[in-house]
Amino acid sequence: MAIIVQKYGGTSVANAERIRSVARRIIATKEKGNQVVVVVSAMGDSTDDLIELAESLTDRPDPRELDLLMSTGEIVSSTLLAMTLKHMGHEAISLSGAQAGIKTDASHSRARITGIEPERIHRELHKGRIVIVAGFQGITESMEVTTLGRGGSDTSAVALAAILGAKICERFTDVDGVYTADPRVVPEARRLKEISYEEMLELATYGAKIMHPRAVELGELYNIPILVASSFNDNPGTLIHGGQMEIRNKVSGIAHDLDVAKITIVGIPDKPGIAASLFEPLAKAGVSVDTIVQNASVKHITDMTFTLAESDLKKAMEVVKPIADHLGATSIEADPNIGKISIVGTGIQNTPGYAAKMFRALYDAGINIDLISTSEIRITVIIEEGKVKEAVRALHKAFELETEE
Amino acid sequence: MAIIVQKYGGTSVANAERIRSVARRIIATKEKGNQVVVVVSAMGDSTDDLIELAESLTDRPDPRELDLLMSTGEIVSSTLLAMTLKHMGHEAISLSGAQAGIKTDASHSRARITGIEPERIHRELHKGRIVIVAGFQGITESMEVTTLGRGGSDTSAVALAAILGAKICERFTDVDGVYTADPRVVPEARRLKEISYEEMLELATYGAKIMHPRAVELGELYNIPILVASSFNDNPGTLIHGGQMEIRNKVSGIAHDLDVAKITIVGIPDKPGIAASLFEPLAKAGVSVDTIVQNASVKHITDMTFTLAESDLKKAMEVVKPIADHLGATSIEADPNIGKISIVGTGIQNTPGYAAKMFRALYDAGINIDLISTSEIRITVIIEEGKVKEAVRALHKAFELETEE
Repeated sequence: MAIIVQKYGGTSVANAERIRSVARRIIATKEKGNQVVVVVSAMGDSTDDLIELAESLTDRPDPRELDLLMSTGEIVSSTLLAMTLKHMGHEAISLSGAQAGIKTDASHSRARITGIEPERIHRELHKGRIVIVAGFQGITESMEVTTLGRGGSDTSAVALAAILGAKICERFTDVDGVYTADPRVVPEARRLKEISYEEMLELATYGAKIMHPRAVELGELYNIPILVASSFNDNPGTLIHGGQMEIRNKVSGIAHDLDVAKITIVGIPDKPGIAASLFEPLAKAGVSVDTIVQNASVKHITDMTFTLAESDLKKAMEVVKPIADHLGATSIEADPNIGKISIVGTGIQNTPGYAAKMFRALYDAGINIDLISTSEIRITVIIEEGKVKEAVRALHKAFELETEE
Repeated sequence: MAIIVQKYGGTSVANAERIRSVARRIIATKEKGNQVVVVVSAMGDSTDDLIELAESLTDRPDPRELDLLMSTGEIVSSTLLAMTLKHMGHEAISLSGAQAGIKTDASHSRARITGIEPERIHRELHKGRIVIVAGFQGITESMEVTTLGRGGSDTSAVALAAILGAKICERFTDVDGVYTADPRVVPEARRLKEISYEEMLELATYGAKIMHPRAVELGELYNIPILVASSFNDNPGTLIHGGQMEIRNKVSGIAHDLDVAKITIVGIPDKPGIAASLFEPLAKAGVSVDTIVQNASVKHITDMTFTLAESDLKKAMEVVKPIADHLGATSIEADPNIGKISIVGTGIQNTPGYAAKMFRALYDAGINIDLISTSEIRITVIIEEGKVKEAVRALHKAFELETEE
C-alpha cells in the first residue's frame, strides 16, 4: 500500500466548514487504497493572534517560550481534523511534533530537522488510521519544543514523505498550482502540469509564495515528487519533480517582483576589500542584497550598484551612508522605483538565444533594461517599476507561454 | 530556601493586564527569598472556546483528541506568563505537563496523577528560575497527553507542592477566601483565617467553588497547607490546614445550596434489595444522590425520600418511574422547591448541643425542617427553597459567626 503525505495550509483549515472539506479530500485519498499522513498548519490567522498576544506583554518574546506558545496552533488544527475524520467514520489520530518523532536542533524559531523517528506513525498507519501531524514543530533531545521557522509546515511534510518513503507529497493551499506568469497580470497565463525543482527554486519570491524553497530543496534532495494544488477546487495542480529535464527546452514561467529598490554608490576607489566593507555590515543588519553590479573602473574609480528589497531600503541607507562617506564616495543614490522580472526554464541552460529574445521583446515594447543578472536556468532584468506588468505580458507573448508546450 | 507553589485560576490570567499583575505577585514572593513554582489555568474562557470549536465539528469529540486540544489552553497562559516574567527581568521558564514530569493514567478527560518526576523542575529552580507549569494536564507512559478533569489545575498544584516538599500551596482566584456564609446572603459574613481540610470538604458545593474537593483531599493526604486568596487584592485569605483541631469548638461556616430537589416514592415493600434496585440505575445514569431517608415501615410497606441536584430531576424521574411502578409503589412525588443548609465545624464532633441549637434557631424563625442528615462535623437540613436565605441569616446570628472566635 502506498503512503501519501498531504499538507494543508492555514487557509485550508481556517474554519469548521473548510476542515470538513479537507477531511472529505483525505477520506477520498484513503479510499483509493492509500495510507495517508496529513500535515496541517495552524488555522487561518491563529498564529498571528498568538504572536499579537505575546507582543501585548513584551516587545521581545523569549524565543523558547514563543516556540512553545506557537506550537499550540498546529495542535489545535490537527486535533480538530482528527476529531472530524472520526466523526465521519474513519479511524484517525493526531500527533504533536514530539509524538510524531520529529527531532530538531535547539535553534528556537528556526530549528532544522535533524531526524524523524517514524515508529509511532508506522504503528498508527498499521492500525488502519489516518495520521495527522502538527506541522511547523519538533522537539529537541532535551524535550524542548521548537518551531521550524518560515516554510516550516511545508518542510515537515516533505521530510515526513522522505522518511516514510511516500509516493508523493501533496501540498494543498489556496493557490492551484504554478502558472507561467501571475494570472492577475497576464490573463492568458497557463497552469504548468509540471516543473523541475530547480525551476521552482529560480522562481524565487513568486515560487516561494506557493512552496517554500527550503521544502523544495528537501524534495530535490530526497527526490520526493511534490504536487501543489488547491484545497478549494479539483484542478490537477502542478507537479514539482526532478525527472525528464533533458527533453524540455523552453521557458517555464515568468516571475516578477515589485518590492525591489536599488542603491548606487558613485565614485569609490576600485581596490580590494571595498565589497566586503559594504556588504558585511549590510548582512549583519539583516539586509539581503540581490544583484550586484560594479562598473569597469576608470582611473581606479568605480561605481557600485546593488538591489535589495524595497522594504529594507531605509535600513540599508543608514548602514551604507557612513561607509560610503568613509570611502570618499562622490554620492549615493537610492531608487525605490524599480522592479525585477525573471524568465525561468531548464531549457535556458546551454541553449543560446533566450537572453537575446528576452532583450529584443523588451526593446520592441519600448522598455529600457537597467541591470541584468543570470543563473544557469534564469535570466533576470531590472527595469522601471511602472513598466513591469507591461513587460511580463510582452515576454509571456514572446515566449508563447499561453500555448501548451 | 523554601519552595512555594502558587496556583492562578483562569480569571486571574484572563488578559495582558492581569497576567502582568500576577507576574508582580510572583516576583514579590521570589524576592522574599523563596523558590517559586507556579501552576496556571487557561486564560479566561479559552477552554470553553476550544470546546465550542470541537463541538462545531462533532457532537461527540474523541476524548483523546479533546485532551490534546484542551492541553493547549494552559500552555498558552504559561508561556505568556513566563515571557512576562522575563520581560520584567526575572529568569523564568514554562513547562508543559509532559516537561514538568506529571505522569497520569490513560483515562482521558479525567486522568489521575500516578506520579511526578520532579528532576526538571528542581534543575530549573536550581538555576534560579521561576518555574511555570501548565496545570490540568499530564502525560501517560506512552506519551499521550491527558487532562485531569474537574479541579484539575488545583490538583496539579497540590500534587506538585507535595512532591517538591513545598512549604505551602497558595491558590489565587477571584474569591478572597472562605467565609462563614455567602456574603451576598449574609452581609456580616466574616472571612475565616483558617479552616481544616475536613471542614472545607464538608462545605460541599460552596467549598468546591473555592477549591475542588479532590485537591483538598490531596492536601490533607500529604499535609500541605493551602492558602486560598484573591489575585485581585491583598486580603490575607484563608488557610486550609490540618493542625490544632482540638482547640476549636465552634461552627466555622454555613453553606447553602438552592440547586436541590427531592423525590419521594410512596408505598413500596420494605425488603432487602429495594435500595440497590433504585440507586444503582441512578448512578449509572450519572445522577448523584445526596441525602436518603427511609421511613420506619408499617406492615412491611415504607416510603423512601432522597435529594439530588435540581438539574438532574428530570433525568432521575425517567429512571425512577418504571422501577417504582415495577415495585408496586403507590405514587412518586417530585419537589424542586427545596434547599439545603449545612453548618460545618470540627467543634461539632463529640459536642452535643449544636443540632439542638440549629433546630431551635430555625424554629424561632418559623422555618420548618423537611429532612436532616449529619456527618461528624456537619449538620444538614433540607427546607423550603424560599426560606433558605432567611435561614442562613438566622443561623449565622445564632452561632455568632460575625464575631471573631
